[in-house]
Amino acid sequence: MSAQRMPQLKQQRSIDTREAILSGAARVFSRVTYAEARYRDVAAESGASEGALYFHFRSKADLAKAILSAQQERMTAVLLDTEAEDGSGLEILLRVMANLGSLIADDEIVQAGIQLAGQPSSEVTAEASEPYLEWVRIARSLVARGVADQSIRVDVDVDLYAELFNTVFVGSQVLSGLEDHWTSLPRRIQRLTPALEAILAA
Amino acid sequence: MSAQRMPQLKQQRSIDTREAILSGAARVFSRVTYAEARYRDVAAESGASEGALYFHFRSKADLAKAILSAQQERMTAVLLDTEAEDGSGLEILLRVMANLGSLIADDEIVQAGIQLAGQPSSEVTAEASEPYLEWVRIARSLVARGVADQSIRVDVDVDLYAELFNTVFVGSQVLSGLEDHWTSLPRRIQRLTPALEAILAA
Repeated sequence: MSAQRMPQLKQQRSIDTREAILSGAARVFSRVTYAEARYRDVAAESGASEGALYFHFRSKADLAKAILSAQQERMTAVLLDTEAEDGSGLEILLRVMANLGSLIADDEIVQAGIQLAGQPSSEVTAEASEPYLEWVRIARSLVARGVADQSIRVDVDVDLYAELFNTVFVGSQVLSGLEDHWTSLPRRIQRLTPALEAILAA
Repeated sequence: MSAQRMPQLKQQRSIDTREAILSGAARVFSRVTYAEARYRDVAAESGASEGALYFHFRSKADLAKAILSAQQERMTAVLLDTEAEDGSGLEILLRVMANLGSLIADDEIVQAGIQLAGQPSSEVTAEASEPYLEWVRIARSLVARGVADQSIRVDVDVDLYAELFNTVFVGSQVLSGLEDHWTSLPRRIQRLTPALEAILAA
């Protein structure tokens, strides 16, 4: 092995360790509240030493913030990727909701972020409502696009229907979270989609 | 004062103390998570002695369960009272949502119950999804009544629109909770009502 490759390998190992710690923290934050979660449980859950954990995250609050920001990145990536696809405004709007639903059902970091965001106390919840604001902005732009390309009825109130969509999405997320830790979210969204389509379609 | 009135007065004082403790506990559970809430903070917040607190509630879990069951009673009372009023199925359905929204915006016990219900851990959350199930059942019966009395379009899928209503209600509740501790909930519901009416009206 050449001397040059060593730093790269070390760097990759550090990235892998960080990922493992975030996954472990996500599982801990999914089981218990922020206040109950213990720094050393995260070490145990992720298989990292407490030294390595401390090297990457100085405190439990740092860990929670890293999870919330990873959640936001992943949700925003799905929103923006789907928004950039081909399709009518209506199709993309419904696809955004379906794709976000699948992300939430499958991704433990996103799930942990949702749990953290809903807790009344803690040092971390101020920044937690960001993804919802992003979603409202994009829903509004997609409803407007659908009105422009005539996939959505021209008489709908864009702001109102963007809010309705946002509300339906959040409600589905919360109910499936209570029901079965988000397993049913894609199915719930799929079930409601024809009704939303009927409400909006031109 | 006659000897007969003494037990009644004592009983009333005991009821008042219990109410004061529940209110104090509600304020504590609204500020911090279940895990962070301390039994002695509830005593301080409610102005009760720790002895009186212990007489009424043996543990923090007992307190939380009492709040969840008071929340359920109050929500169910609003649901049933509104369901029994005069009006078409559609009118009552929309009124149920408005009345529940006002209850949540105004009642600190109900607010604390919602907060407790959303927390991932704790000994108390198993019984917390009850009010939502009650709401789905009543929404379904009101949609069916609206179809029967022709205030709601006969071609709607009763189960699907009951679920849509439930989802919109829960989503509004969660978003207003994040935004401003439910102050905006009645306004949000009022804003969405014409859209829901347009979707359902015969």
